[in-house]
Amino acid sequence: MMQKITRRELGAALVIATAAGRRAATRYGRIKYTMPDKPKEIAMLVYPGMTALDLVGPQQVFGYTMGARVHLVWKTKLPVVTDTGLSIVPTKTFAECPDPVDIIFVPGGGLATINLMKDADTIAFLKSRGEKARLVTSVCSGALVIGAAGLLRGYQATTHWAVRDVLPLLGAKRVDARVVEDRNRITAGGITSGIDFGLRIAARLRGEDYGRALELQLEYDPQPPFHTGSPEKAGGAVLSVMKQMFQPLNDMAREAAIASTKAL
Amino acid sequence: MMQKITRRELGAALVIATAAGRRAATRYGRIKYTMPDKPKEIAMLVYPGMTALDLVGPQQVFGYTMGARVHLVWKTKLPVVTDTGLSIVPTKTFAECPDPVDIIFVPGGGLATINLMKDADTIAFLKSRGEKARLVTSVCSGALVIGAAGLLRGYQATTHWAVRDVLPLLGAKRVDARVVEDRNRITAGGITSGIDFGLRIAARLRGEDYGRALELQLEYDPQPPFHTGSPEKAGGAVLSVMKQMFQPLNDMAREAAIASTKAL
Repeated sequence: MMQKITRRELGAALVIATAAGRRAATRYGRIKYTMPDKPKEIAMLVYPGMTALDLVGPQQVFGYTMGARVHLVWKTKLPVVTDTGLSIVPTKTFAECPDPVDIIFVPGGGLATINLMKDADTIAFLKSRGEKARLVTSVCSGALVIGAAGLLRGYQATTHWAVRDVLPLLGAKRVDARVVEDRNRITAGGITSGIDFGLRIAARLRGEDYGRALELQLEYDPQPPFHTGSPEKAGGAVLSVMKQMFQPLNDMAREAAIASTKAL
Repeated sequence: MMQKITRRELGAALVIATAAGRRAATRYGRIKYTMPDKPKEIAMLVYPGMTALDLVGPQQVFGYTMGARVHLVWKTKLPVVTDTGLSIVPTKTFAECPDPVDIIFVPGGGLATINLMKDADTIAFLKSRGEKARLVTSVCSGALVIGAAGLLRGYQATTHWAVRDVLPLLGAKRVDARVVEDRNRITAGGITSGIDFGLRIAARLRGEDYGRALELQLEYDPQPPFHTGSPEKAGGAVLSVMKQMFQPLNDMAREAAIASTKAL
């Protein structure tokens, strides 16, 4: 029996024990947070070739957020093989995904992501949920996919540094920042920015104290070993090599972006 | 066909095209790195109730590291449900896992991790691979499991802040740091520290320039929104609430640690 209790359930159990019967502003010890009347439905797209960490950074945060119901959504429920060979199992098909959802989320990846910009079923799903969602969100090149669904037109947004210059082709205003919030659009930069992004959203959902507690639980006190995590910080040889590596992807993203605006 | 090309393969293809035929010190553009004569075998334990981000942080880095062959190892190959409901598919059973491996890795989690400290099959597997591995490694409370296998005795180590005081019970010397390297043991702190950890190991395997390039690829330029990612930084109400939440886990970890030293 003990084997089935997870850290999340432990936390939830403790807080439920304390907060039982209260629905709105709640205190646990000296920290304050808000609980929703009903669970927040969070739909996270998963797809073959995606970058696992784009998803799992925010998924871990949402998973630790009480009152959030996280769905991993794809066309089928067969395991999806990510860009480094890690397989993740979807929990809902497009048809099974709640409608409306509170949050729709799209992770990035390599060429698979570019191809997804042209995938009619995915675009239709994102438009249907995105137009009614409380928050429309992405990490990394996932922004290009929500952009291809027309959901970033007129909004400030960011994406992985290697494809940031594609955003204006999708009608978005490019902002060079780790997380960009513009009304109900929240987009994040490359891969690891999903953690910063997730914590900010958790704080929106449950209050800043809750975000602070999760940041401590995740021990998010980063010490990047090389201080080369942005184009500006890397510079020189490292940046030029990586730019060269990403150039073919950038070219294809531009092409797909132009095609998507014609299709809409 | 295009749908099957991932970012990783793109990078690999570009570098292989440049570096073809060379095995040792290699250059791509102006960055230098080393390639091994044969792939490095990296065995990453996965198990029900584990924390997905403990695994996926370093797995994403290793997956982008050329010449690394990453195995996700468990008793069966059925999907493993992590502590927030995300399911990951193991790729090898204990019996199928290469022997020896270059790197053995254990992620953490909640009570499931504590129970794993008492699991004879897992401990036997970790001892068998750990005694011959080039690097014995962990993120988060995974350190308690390698410690229960006797692999941290006499070594400096770290783990998630909430269970750091358990390390001495396993014969390890507790160090309060994000990543601790002592000879061939590399242990990291809570959950998100796996990214810092992964980058450091990639640099050990392929050289510092390679680590710098991966840090840029992952856009690891963190901006934690609340600056509460360590007990020292959080302090006050947030720390006291989280300590209280983790106390039952800490108690059980202490008990399991004491039992494990008697069992060995």
